[in-house]
Amino acid sequence: MKHLVILGSTGSVGVNTLDVVARFPERFRVVGLAAGGDVARMERQARRFRPQVVALADEKAAATLSRKLSPLGIEVLAGAQGVIDVARQVAADRVVSAIVGGAGLAPTWAAIHAGRAIALANKETMVMAGALMMAAARKQGVPILPVDSEHSGLFQVMTGARRAEVARVILTASGGPLIDFSAAMKRQVTPKQALAHPTWKMGPKISIDSATLMNKGLEVIEARWLFDLAPEQIDVVIHRQSIIHAMIEFQDRSTVAQMALPDMRVPISYALFHPERAPMALPSLRLEKMKPLTFEPCRRQAFPLLGAAYAALAAGGTAPAALNGANEEAVAAFLAGQIGFMKMQAIVRKTLDAHTVREVKAIDDALDADAWARDTARRLMGTSSSKPSTPKPRHSPTSSCGHIR
Amino acid sequence: MKHLVILGSTGSVGVNTLDVVARFPERFRVVGLAAGGDVARMERQARRFRPQVVALADEKAAATLSRKLSPLGIEVLAGAQGVIDVARQVAADRVVSAIVGGAGLAPTWAAIHAGRAIALANKETMVMAGALMMAAARKQGVPILPVDSEHSGLFQVMTGARRAEVARVILTASGGPLIDFSAAMKRQVTPKQALAHPTWKMGPKISIDSATLMNKGLEVIEARWLFDLAPEQIDVVIHRQSIIHAMIEFQDRSTVAQMALPDMRVPISYALFHPERAPMALPSLRLEKMKPLTFEPCRRQAFPLLGAAYAALAAGGTAPAALNGANEEAVAAFLAGQIGFMKMQAIVRKTLDAHTVREVKAIDDALDADAWARDTARRLMGTSSSKPSTPKPRHSPTSSCGHIR
Repeated sequence: MKHLVILGSTGSVGVNTLDVVARFPERFRVVGLAAGGDVARMERQARRFRPQVVALADEKAAATLSRKLSPLGIEVLAGAQGVIDVARQVAADRVVSAIVGGAGLAPTWAAIHAGRAIALANKETMVMAGALMMAAARKQGVPILPVDSEHSGLFQVMTGARRAEVARVILTASGGPLIDFSAAMKRQVTPKQALAHPTWKMGPKISIDSATLMNKGLEVIEARWLFDLAPEQIDVVIHRQSIIHAMIEFQDRSTVAQMALPDMRVPISYALFHPERAPMALPSLRLEKMKPLTFEPCRRQAFPLLGAAYAALAAGGTAPAALNGANEEAVAAFLAGQIGFMKMQAIVRKTLDAHTVREVKAIDDALDADAWARDTARRLMGTSSSKPSTPKPRHSPTSSCGHIR
Repeated sequence: MKHLVILGSTGSVGVNTLDVVARFPERFRVVGLAAGGDVARMERQARRFRPQVVALADEKAAATLSRKLSPLGIEVLAGAQGVIDVARQVAADRVVSAIVGGAGLAPTWAAIHAGRAIALANKETMVMAGALMMAAARKQGVPILPVDSEHSGLFQVMTGARRAEVARVILTASGGPLIDFSAAMKRQVTPKQALAHPTWKMGPKISIDSATLMNKGLEVIEARWLFDLAPEQIDVVIHRQSIIHAMIEFQDRSTVAQMALPDMRVPISYALFHPERAPMALPSLRLEKMKPLTFEPCRRQAFPLLGAAYAALAAGGTAPAALNGANEEAVAAFLAGQIGFMKMQAIVRKTLDAHTVREVKAIDDALDADAWARDTARRLMGTSSSKPSTPKPRHSPTSSCGHIR
């Protein structure tokens, strides 16, 4: 019986994780849940899965939820610190890190330092501070099990591979809903159009990032750290059907690929059960009943944000954190109707151009770059903050919080 | 430095094996070669690679070759027994078993009993006596490394997989040159048309088997033994491009596939270097520059010889050996212009219908079924023997042959 904490339980990955968990009641027990501010959904999840502790980052929402859950004996923590406390203080075998965006960094960092195995859906953790995260995980002996379909696929095919024999890895990208739009057409794109992902049903932030291919750029950076690859070993290919998620080409010219129907429950179950593979009552992949699998070159000129991600990876240090912070603000502004689709890439580029790259010696260096980039992007757009600034974790072992059971 | 014996060195796999060997002179030394009767090619190979011993199954050809090679100090053995002696008496780290058809069984059996690691291209070995071969290999602690592209692919993706978690395996078939021919068109097919394989350049026997899909049937039987699968776990899918060679679907609905451009040097190098993967100076697989990958159901009605192979596997015992023997005679007769294309399946079916299945307790049981099936098929066709009957190995440890160095 594995005890699980799920950070970001009300989001798309969180809901799919609980779907998997519900299929195996004898294998998992949910001991902690955390989310942003969705009181109604969190209440339903808490009533069903009966965790010991839940947290909502929104303090008002947490207060409302507390009144509803206290009769059940479920403790409700509030604020960014409450989320971090669930991540590190609830005794768990595995922490699912599925908070969207930079806000996932501090709780993931806290969970690694608490020695929890991580099922990682929050790619920003690796984008903002990949070197530090991997070093901390190694030091703590903590496995990082990717949940993202591409990285789950890579993880599966990299297992048992000799690193020196891997010539390159290939991440596939569906291309998103705007793959066939010209630049002129993209200028007119509405959030609704950009959210209409052809193969995956996902949350709004990642759907927009899929339309710009920034999502693939973030994945390239994540893969660099998760698998200790050189940036030039990581290729991206457009594969509209989203069946092949990742491939590795060995130096002997054999390629090994992972495939699955686009359903997040497949990679989630892999991360929850690893090193086992559980029987999932989902449709079998029958290639002979499907359309052909197509592959196209991914032209970085057509997707400047993918190019920006490669450039930030090459610049190193705080550049990827700044890239990510600026992009999150730009996406929020686009979704709010404040800027046009093509403005997102301009905002990110201008922010990066203004950024002075520093070494990421501590997690605060990444968080400072993130905060700076958000401010800069907002100033460039003339918008106000889209969300509370990314919380910082408390590392002190003399923290006043006791161990939550 | 690995010492290699190559059985079937003048055939397609043999020539490709020597191509790989020639790329890595510091890694391999060829110590023995064996083939049927191609004096000219064997002489060239022997002059280039300087083995200690060569053998030709054709005794006249061996005598001719001996005159040419004795000045070089290369010993030339003759006849079926000479081939077996090269397989078991030349000290080698790995024996490449690449003799075409049932004639490969006895030398492979001898090499396993001599404790040699086997790089197996001769699928008939597994078809005729898979259970015995695998038991002998286990007993001798001998690895069987498949060379066939499909089985090499399976071997690569099965490595590290937990057997109980494998739901099914999928072998791909290009469908061969006649995939779009109607039954009426197939009746008129010439050997030349049937030999024109769309993706692979191979020897004549396997090319005809690819056109009938008997080759895939033999591969299904081979996979059953190599990977200890239930027959119903082995599916075949038509994939015209021959890029994906094999896949496994796990019970968690993840599929892992092995791909490579259709070039035998890729799986050969895998079998020669295993567990390493060597840098092969061959073109990289660039899916984005290729046509789409298509997949079609493989209808067993359209390919009766594939259905016959599944039926023989289900019948067990000597049935697959009889299937293979009858098929080899039918293919030889078709290639010689003695019977039409559609007659091959009729001959195989009639032979199997007349066969009394017996248990394969010893290798002779498989060889007897093979001889019986060849006789029966020839009688049905009114043809004479296409080749010398399959040689039987001598197992006696008191054999009069000394150890060849």
